[in-house]
Amino acid sequence: MRKGTLLYSQSGGVTAVINATASAVIQAARRHKVKVLAARNGILGALREELIDTTKAPLAAIRALAHTPGGAFGSCRYKLKSLEADRAKYERLLDVFRAHDVRWFLYNGGNDSADTALKLSQLAEASGYPLTCVGVPKTVDNDLAVTDTCPGFGSAAKYTAVSVREAALDVAAMAETSTKVFVYEVMGRHAGWLAAAAGLAGDGKDDAPQVILFPEIAYDEAKFLAKVKATVDKVGWCVVVVSEGIRHPDGRFVAEAGTVDAFGHSQLGGVGPTLAGVVKDKLGLKVHWTVPDYLQRSARHLASKTDLEQAMAVGEAAVEYALEGMNGVMPVIVRTADSPYRWKIAPAPLAKIANHEKKMPKNFIRKDGFGITEACRRYLAPLIRGEAPPPYRPDGLPDYLRLANTPVTRRLPPLQA
Amino acid sequence: MRKGTLLYSQSGGVTAVINATASAVIQAARRHKVKVLAARNGILGALREELIDTTKAPLAAIRALAHTPGGAFGSCRYKLKSLEADRAKYERLLDVFRAHDVRWFLYNGGNDSADTALKLSQLAEASGYPLTCVGVPKTVDNDLAVTDTCPGFGSAAKYTAVSVREAALDVAAMAETSTKVFVYEVMGRHAGWLAAAAGLAGDGKDDAPQVILFPEIAYDEAKFLAKVKATVDKVGWCVVVVSEGIRHPDGRFVAEAGTVDAFGHSQLGGVGPTLAGVVKDKLGLKVHWTVPDYLQRSARHLASKTDLEQAMAVGEAAVEYALEGMNGVMPVIVRTADSPYRWKIAPAPLAKIANHEKKMPKNFIRKDGFGITEACRRYLAPLIRGEAPPPYRPDGLPDYLRLANTPVTRRLPPLQA
Repeated sequence: MRKGTLLYSQSGGVTAVINATASAVIQAARRHKVKVLAARNGILGALREELIDTTKAPLAAIRALAHTPGGAFGSCRYKLKSLEADRAKYERLLDVFRAHDVRWFLYNGGNDSADTALKLSQLAEASGYPLTCVGVPKTVDNDLAVTDTCPGFGSAAKYTAVSVREAALDVAAMAETSTKVFVYEVMGRHAGWLAAAAGLAGDGKDDAPQVILFPEIAYDEAKFLAKVKATVDKVGWCVVVVSEGIRHPDGRFVAEAGTVDAFGHSQLGGVGPTLAGVVKDKLGLKVHWTVPDYLQRSARHLASKTDLEQAMAVGEAAVEYALEGMNGVMPVIVRTADSPYRWKIAPAPLAKIANHEKKMPKNFIRKDGFGITEACRRYLAPLIRGEAPPPYRPDGLPDYLRLANTPVTRRLPPLQA
Repeated sequence: MRKGTLLYSQSGGVTAVINATASAVIQAARRHKVKVLAARNGILGALREELIDTTKAPLAAIRALAHTPGGAFGSCRYKLKSLEADRAKYERLLDVFRAHDVRWFLYNGGNDSADTALKLSQLAEASGYPLTCVGVPKTVDNDLAVTDTCPGFGSAAKYTAVSVREAALDVAAMAETSTKVFVYEVMGRHAGWLAAAAGLAGDGKDDAPQVILFPEIAYDEAKFLAKVKATVDKVGWCVVVVSEGIRHPDGRFVAEAGTVDAFGHSQLGGVGPTLAGVVKDKLGLKVHWTVPDYLQRSARHLASKTDLEQAMAVGEAAVEYALEGMNGVMPVIVRTADSPYRWKIAPAPLAKIANHEKKMPKNFIRKDGFGITEACRRYLAPLIRGEAPPPYRPDGLPDYLRLANTPVTRRLPPLQA
């Protein structure tokens, strides 16, 4: 065994393939004879010294992680403040790292997690403790800067495109005497990437979804209703895909639930039924709606093979970067060609990623605001390609793994609240 | 070609495998050299003489129907009244049948469709017109009498069990700092079969879903909240599966949308977010919810192989029964053994099926009302076994077929309104 420990931690909303990244991290580290500990429930586990010894897990289990959704070690929504404001917590993290000889820290998450990884990388440099911090990208929202796409997004995008295609066949069959307008709510607080992915569902001009509402475009009720009505008049029915984060021109969310999460974001949900009500009341059409919610980010059964490969590639690269001492970077996906699609992994500074948010470029949204452009389709199309189904058990359920998660014996006194 | 035409028609809510039944019907009829016409949008197409000539479709297309969700010829929610009250419409149907030499009529639907098929079979006998009417079972609700299960249910059940299993992994990973209670709303107005299917998702006692709310059990808010709280206290989180049709003790639906469909049923939806609000307000726990709605009945990508085989078997048997002149029957699924699971197809009189509704037997629901029993698990388990994924295109989407649907030239004047 090489001297020193690699600590891996999952953060923020989980995805269908974040465990595939974990699997690749652990497998790569094992090849380098590096011991991997995992923090239970993200950075909280590091603060509390709740660590999991992954060396106790057999290789078959680590491999099976790659087809298991959720977060195998637990994740969290917990944002550390600045180095000054949360000094005691950062010191505690360094204490835990020292106690377990953690030389490499991999933080697998989104914007906020990149920020935490960046701060830890700065702290390590300032303190003289030999720590290399590497961020590992993950988010179904696809809103990380620099990287061409984010592991987790491709699978959620595939789930969305396939589900919209299937539901549209249902609506088309029944529209004569039943539902005329179907509203499908997708995740995406500020960036319309998943809403855009629904645009891959159809083949032709009048195919579903005929209306997409992006958070990048202010919601205009009159224009929306006119478009829905025109579609129903022409096609006989209409599928609307709406991003949870659409806002009125004055900035209020169309569906404002009023609660706030640990990162200070509003907790949304319910714009689908809200819009369905508007359509029913104003147009008098029969409406159904769906809110897949967590299903869209946990549907490992419908993962994109491209996404899975990228999720594993960033995990593997993160270990390489860490062992090479590349502090404060993140392995990102670089697209080298659209058709045939080619990509590679390259390091990018966390400082360019932390707290940034990549919205849809203007030229990805159609002029009328209700659909995606050819440029957007060129960008998105490769990301949902290929299938990577999990193995199924004889009882008809996917053979998802639950790791035993052997705890590491504590070496420090408990965290003071 | 044999003399006479077989008319096939789809009715009521579509399923992931109703087109597989259509595929089997057409293939069986072709083997018997019988011409199949399909009515556009269910019985409405028969009334309006909007018929589709399936002989124009190549065999490859008919085979591809078996992996395409939705209703290939269109379906409808349209219930004929009694023979007396709707005499003119029944006469019109006979006129259309005579004009196209329809000797065999196959109506593929649920309770209400069995009623229509039964009435037509009686009309045919009374009128002396040589018509054989055969009902073909289909419904995700699994509420048809006599048959052991209903084609369409097994796939929706598999979708539900897999989705609950996946979402539970997500919730478990995040519960420490995020969602503690996840509410999953399933279809089922009066019968809790799909809610029960969610019970297959877990392996152990504390596995999700920890709470199932069935329409067969009156909703008791205090008992429900106590169970949720106890689960969160013990497990750390809780997945609730709720049937859209749960009611207060006084009979009111917990989520009453107030609208009514063509069959006179209340149009529901929204009990998921309603319960989520109750949990949030009364227990102060962070909650998320999902309403998959049409996704659960159109998810052909996750079809049960057992269900697919049964959907095709009833289609094939319906053709045999029709050609043998068995008027007023439906091919039903008869279970001959649980383990290993064995089944066969047998004819049953439509009179025993029409307008009946099979609810969950008492011994399928746990004494506390919140889960399924071993007897229920024994019944459900075989129905979700086996995978039957559709072929995928290179672009990552399932290769679903759109039939050209060549119309038959009209031979009658238009229907008088």
